[in-house]
Amino acid sequence: MRILVQKFGGTSVADIDRLKMVRGKVTAALDRGYKVLVVLSAKSGKTNKLLALAGRWAETPDLAEVDSLLSTGEQASVTLFSMLLRDGGIKARSLLGWQIPIVTDDTFGNARILSIDDAKLREAFEENDVLVVAGFQGVTREGRITTLGRGGSDTSAVALAAALGSCECEIYTDVEGVFTTDPNLCSTARKLDRISYDEMLEMASMGAKVLQIRSVEFAKKYGVPVHVRSTFTDNPGTMVTQEDSMMEAVLVSGVAYDKDQARVTLEGVPDQPGISAAIFQPLAASGIMVDMIIQTASRGGVTDMTFTVPRKALADAIGIMESVLKSVGGARVVSSGNVAKVSVIGVGMRNHTGVASKAFAALYRENINILMISTSEIKISCLIEEKYAELAVRTLHDAFKLGEKPLDQAS
Amino acid sequence: MRILVQKFGGTSVADIDRLKMVRGKVTAALDRGYKVLVVLSAKSGKTNKLLALAGRWAETPDLAEVDSLLSTGEQASVTLFSMLLRDGGIKARSLLGWQIPIVTDDTFGNARILSIDDAKLREAFEENDVLVVAGFQGVTREGRITTLGRGGSDTSAVALAAALGSCECEIYTDVEGVFTTDPNLCSTARKLDRISYDEMLEMASMGAKVLQIRSVEFAKKYGVPVHVRSTFTDNPGTMVTQEDSMMEAVLVSGVAYDKDQARVTLEGVPDQPGISAAIFQPLAASGIMVDMIIQTASRGGVTDMTFTVPRKALADAIGIMESVLKSVGGARVVSSGNVAKVSVIGVGMRNHTGVASKAFAALYRENINILMISTSEIKISCLIEEKYAELAVRTLHDAFKLGEKPLDQAS
Repeated sequence: MRILVQKFGGTSVADIDRLKMVRGKVTAALDRGYKVLVVLSAKSGKTNKLLALAGRWAETPDLAEVDSLLSTGEQASVTLFSMLLRDGGIKARSLLGWQIPIVTDDTFGNARILSIDDAKLREAFEENDVLVVAGFQGVTREGRITTLGRGGSDTSAVALAAALGSCECEIYTDVEGVFTTDPNLCSTARKLDRISYDEMLEMASMGAKVLQIRSVEFAKKYGVPVHVRSTFTDNPGTMVTQEDSMMEAVLVSGVAYDKDQARVTLEGVPDQPGISAAIFQPLAASGIMVDMIIQTASRGGVTDMTFTVPRKALADAIGIMESVLKSVGGARVVSSGNVAKVSVIGVGMRNHTGVASKAFAALYRENINILMISTSEIKISCLIEEKYAELAVRTLHDAFKLGEKPLDQAS
Repeated sequence: MRILVQKFGGTSVADIDRLKMVRGKVTAALDRGYKVLVVLSAKSGKTNKLLALAGRWAETPDLAEVDSLLSTGEQASVTLFSMLLRDGGIKARSLLGWQIPIVTDDTFGNARILSIDDAKLREAFEENDVLVVAGFQGVTREGRITTLGRGGSDTSAVALAAALGSCECEIYTDVEGVFTTDPNLCSTARKLDRISYDEMLEMASMGAKVLQIRSVEFAKKYGVPVHVRSTFTDNPGTMVTQEDSMMEAVLVSGVAYDKDQARVTLEGVPDQPGISAAIFQPLAASGIMVDMIIQTASRGGVTDMTFTVPRKALADAIGIMESVLKSVGGARVVSSGNVAKVSVIGVGMRNHTGVASKAFAALYRENINILMISTSEIKISCLIEEKYAELAVRTLHDAFKLGEKPLDQAS
């Protein structure tokens, strides 16, 4: 039994016409000899609508009840699509998270998958050619419905493919695949044929929101090849896979950017052991995600500490820092909401030098001042003034010739 | 642990204001020392809306998928109401049919309850004061969602009360209780304090649609006292219970009517063994419910056979009878859609004579011609011309003095 997993998002299940297109993808796979496990999201906007409804009913809606409410969105998608398939003579049935079961922990609203029983799936495939599984939802060991967090249907699909030992998981979306950068910013942005899990993780966390980041982690962990492609064409998309030697030849795969950045600086804090903990522990306790951190060299026993947070957390972060200053001493807190992060990403960096200096030189040529720098093995990120974000993306994209197909990938 | 079951229908869960009224009923019961099991329907119109949706997706929607789709209506009701309760500091949680489980057979769309596990309910009551259970839904032994048919939430409530050995099941509705006849037709119609299961069954099947008929059968089978009362007042409603000696003193409890009647007569069919089967088997095979049947005395080896069917089935019934006539021989088929059935109901009839003649005399005084008569132990039904239906109801209601409280029930 060859099983293909195909996942379709909210825009693909919005109406009957779209779902007939989805049916076309499914029947094409059946014609190629596959049994197909289809994972569906709720239709676009449905989850937000249900959340708003819950908000009208309770000031602080109980999270377990919210999950049970939200799960009805996918339940509608999978039952309706199964009817459509069966009406067309295809042997199909719907399966909800608890019917398989997809067992999760009890972190309602953001549950993690613990196990998936493939026995029920294989049994259901004995009688059906297509199983239509509700994405985004699972069930605790105690039998309560959970949801996997935003974009969780991607994770459902990858986890189901892993459980079935399926050779491939297709994620259908409204874009053609993963691009070297945002095509809306850069006309020479090019669709990538392949990208590694690690690169995809860096891209996803930077706002290239094609795949939910947890689904990529899952795919990496279980080695599930993920094919990101468009519902609306038959063109091949982007394969997200293990890194291979061919990939390493490509120095840089993409340029990402993130405007959801704000910068906070504590000037003149005492340069002493424990100061970092004093600053970042209260931020963590308030649930504020800190991204980049820089500590300047000490001058006269004091130092400046700079970090970035999501913009909506800026006011809270400033408040927390004001009280930190009172307890540890220090000159003042300065901040800016008008900053953005641009990043150059590529597994090839691991074995090559000069990527960073090339990036800095390119930005310098356009008079773009770099406010902060952070680097990882496969990524260089620069914080810049927000107004230069688009220019910086195009500049870096050109500097690394990302618009041109690499020689060794050209056909 | 004293448990009270309270069921609220679609009009009671239509919006937040209504459900705050429901919360009032629940908290009043908590204040009286009960733990409360609340059974909710989908909000009014929701089930029809989902059925219409299914109809747009498939010409003949798969019944199992339809049930899974329909069950989302009650799922929304119970999760939202649980949020509302918890937000008000009440320990409550929702429970879906499969979470208990309420096990049914696999007659999708009209499933019958096979068993209810009360262990899960009692366990959930350890941690909660209120359990909010989705009505109308169950699950097969194989784990597929089923629904119990129209009005099935009444049956859910009674079955849950039976499973818990609960002393009482309150069915909240938008009327004050069960009336001696339709108050819209008869200004002297009076709310009954008590009615027996058998009388209620006869009332319900005649269109006094306060309770789903299967819920009454269930209540009778397990001896669950059902209190039918209004969501919108605090007045006591009508207790539906075992017949008792006090009830038998009341000759007649109510007058019901049913305009969904049509009459078919086969004239001059051969009066021979097997003729009834030849007529009624093809009707049954076509799913047409036959209500009253009369065969006139044989004249010269031929007889007339008259029966009633629901009006929407009249055209089909005539067609079937035309072909029956061809095979068995006979003069002709005549029919009428303009007929109605009025019934006088009461357990007291069992031990009293003269009810039938009193009813016939009352109709005769108003020049209402009786077209057919059928009787049971506790009911006398007369088929009449439809135009007299309202007059007949009022006439019979007056003849048996139903507007007056019986002496032995007067306070």
